[in-house]
Amino acid sequence: MHHASDILLTLFIVFVAAQVGGEIAQRLKLPGVVGEIAAGCVVGPSLLGWIVPEQVATGTPLDVLAEIGVVLLLFSVGLETRLDDLKKVGRTALLVGVVGVLVPFGMGALWAHGSGFDWDKSMFVAAAFVATSAGITARVLQELGALQRMESKVILGAAVIDDILAMLLLGVVVSLQGGAGFDGGRLLLVLGEAVGFIAVIGWGGSRVMRRHSHWLDKPRNVQSPLLVALALCLGLAWVSTLFGLAAIIGAFLAGMIASETRQQHTLEQQTRPLLALLTPFFFVVTGSKIDLHELAGADALWALLLATVIAIVSKLVGGGLGALPLGRRGAAIVGFGMVPRGEVGVVIASLGLAAGVFDNRIYAIIVAMSLLTAMVTPPVLAWLLRHTPASDGTAGTDTTS
Amino acid sequence: MHHASDILLTLFIVFVAAQVGGEIAQRLKLPGVVGEIAAGCVVGPSLLGWIVPEQVATGTPLDVLAEIGVVLLLFSVGLETRLDDLKKVGRTALLVGVVGVLVPFGMGALWAHGSGFDWDKSMFVAAAFVATSAGITARVLQELGALQRMESKVILGAAVIDDILAMLLLGVVVSLQGGAGFDGGRLLLVLGEAVGFIAVIGWGGSRVMRRHSHWLDKPRNVQSPLLVALALCLGLAWVSTLFGLAAIIGAFLAGMIASETRQQHTLEQQTRPLLALLTPFFFVVTGSKIDLHELAGADALWALLLATVIAIVSKLVGGGLGALPLGRRGAAIVGFGMVPRGEVGVVIASLGLAAGVFDNRIYAIIVAMSLLTAMVTPPVLAWLLRHTPASDGTAGTDTTS
Repeated sequence: MHHASDILLTLFIVFVAAQVGGEIAQRLKLPGVVGEIAAGCVVGPSLLGWIVPEQVATGTPLDVLAEIGVVLLLFSVGLETRLDDLKKVGRTALLVGVVGVLVPFGMGALWAHGSGFDWDKSMFVAAAFVATSAGITARVLQELGALQRMESKVILGAAVIDDILAMLLLGVVVSLQGGAGFDGGRLLLVLGEAVGFIAVIGWGGSRVMRRHSHWLDKPRNVQSPLLVALALCLGLAWVSTLFGLAAIIGAFLAGMIASETRQQHTLEQQTRPLLALLTPFFFVVTGSKIDLHELAGADALWALLLATVIAIVSKLVGGGLGALPLGRRGAAIVGFGMVPRGEVGVVIASLGLAAGVFDNRIYAIIVAMSLLTAMVTPPVLAWLLRHTPASDGTAGTDTTS
Repeated sequence: MHHASDILLTLFIVFVAAQVGGEIAQRLKLPGVVGEIAAGCVVGPSLLGWIVPEQVATGTPLDVLAEIGVVLLLFSVGLETRLDDLKKVGRTALLVGVVGVLVPFGMGALWAHGSGFDWDKSMFVAAAFVATSAGITARVLQELGALQRMESKVILGAAVIDDILAMLLLGVVVSLQGGAGFDGGRLLLVLGEAVGFIAVIGWGGSRVMRRHSHWLDKPRNVQSPLLVALALCLGLAWVSTLFGLAAIIGAFLAGMIASETRQQHTLEQQTRPLLALLTPFFFVVTGSKIDLHELAGADALWALLLATVIAIVSKLVGGGLGALPLGRRGAAIVGFGMVPRGEVGVVIASLGLAAGVFDNRIYAIIVAMSLLTAMVTPPVLAWLLRHTPASDGTAGTDTTS
């Protein structure tokens, strides 16, 4: 009985901390998500120690709630995204995704090698510089009601491509560590499977839903459209992990498919209370993983500062270059939109620690870098979005497909 | 990464199983909740083994989701309940609560003593016959839109009293096991604290909310009424565990307070998607805890049958006697409404197992009895409710306060 009491207290603390942090941030004209992450850092082990998340394991109740939170968030973002819109920005998104992976990977590897790692290990470290965490940017875009902007479509499309490439890259660097050598054929197979999964679900699913959305009303339960959509969301989130992709990619696809149904508006409304309850867990847990103690000392702080600057600049340049067709302001929005590493960087650092490639110091630096990029981006992105007139959604030079 | 995949698969299985079970039950004209519990039994360790909940621990992600689900369910039931309505049935509810605890306790103790336990241990076993699980009845009442009926108010009021008494009784029987003797003063203190907590929150909170509900709109977040209400729900759920009460009592009080606000209707609508996502976890996890293997064999089945009959008859007689002022049909509804033991019986059995009072066999029987009462009740209750005209809410002979 006492254990149930502890869990409820933790849930209460996380939820209230998120609301207080979000409220303070909004009154300071910052995106609420910044306040939620900062609140996580405050109640986490570094400062108050009211909640103690596991750094490496992902099976605790808080981690699961965080996972459900970000899965639902990307589902709701998918609900506001149509396949046709993504197709319009296909070429730009592909460019942003590819260049936005190559530049951070190169710069990250150079930095790690300069910090004293051999090349094989440096490439593992560099992998943590690569993967964008779509959740944080998506939340900012949603908070500002900017999901229908051209730049947002490019960011979302690029995030999907980014995730595929990051997964492949991680496969390569992990295979390099064992000395077992590089198996190009297997990687091609993995790439083919992932692209195939996304294409079949995204394209096929959208077509099916457009024609047969009356099925969602078939079950007796009055909440049935939501229930079918949630089952689809959880199911595709799981399946996408089978293809080595992040769960949020599947959730995003599920939302995108559901956006083709005639119940789309109802689904959007019904999803909002779910986000209100569950996404705070994701952001507070993310913030609570910042370990301030490992970063005490000038050396560590300099290393962190350098790593963070490299992480920001490399993604801004890589992502921005790919998005130049959208104009300079548009390119800056896309570039900054790709900057947050958030929990993806944390996951890769955890893998590196488990594989014995990372020591505690580089682990703490990479984790802090990932989370700093997540905290720095939202205010900048919000400022850029507020001060850049929205294109009409069909403008820009990307006229292919 | 692989662990996240397992968790997502489990969530998907639980959610889909609940929907399929609920759908089948509704097509068979049974309450959906019966299908969800049965689905839990099917996917649980006894049959398919797709999900494996812990019997004793309550810290796994599935248990936490189940807890959040039932907390939200009772919060939403509270949202449909006003303090003034409960006051009207106060005397009847008190009678139902008290007699509905004494009769099952007595009959349970006799049965356990007859099964070969000494009196001290028999009283521990009997404690598992006492506590009603409000969640299952509340769900049936909500599914049938019967929460505004006189009988429903009596059941909800009695469930609160039942929980206080069950907690006290458990305190007594646990203290008897150690041989440390009985401390009447401490128990009076515990009783006073629990009653005080409920009175202060229920009465004071309702008054405050009636006058100051504009505070709920103060925060910047557009979802703010829901967010404040959810914080209140989690907070009071936690506080009520500090007073030794079930978390759902605090959640029910939070809902009852929130029902006094002018945002009550919005809150009700926003809570529905939360219930849709999270309550299935409670019912499927409950069902998955039925261990069919321990019950193989005629002896165990006979013992289970007898225990279940005693559990049903004793609560029906005890609860029904207290509710006789509502007429015979009304008394039957109230009596059956108090029958489900559900997860409360499971928790007490777990305590008994941990304390070394229960062996595996009696543990399995008590758990199965608790869950059988949870499965048998909903169809009977639904039938009774459908075939009994609703009283006008002020009728009946309970004219006090």
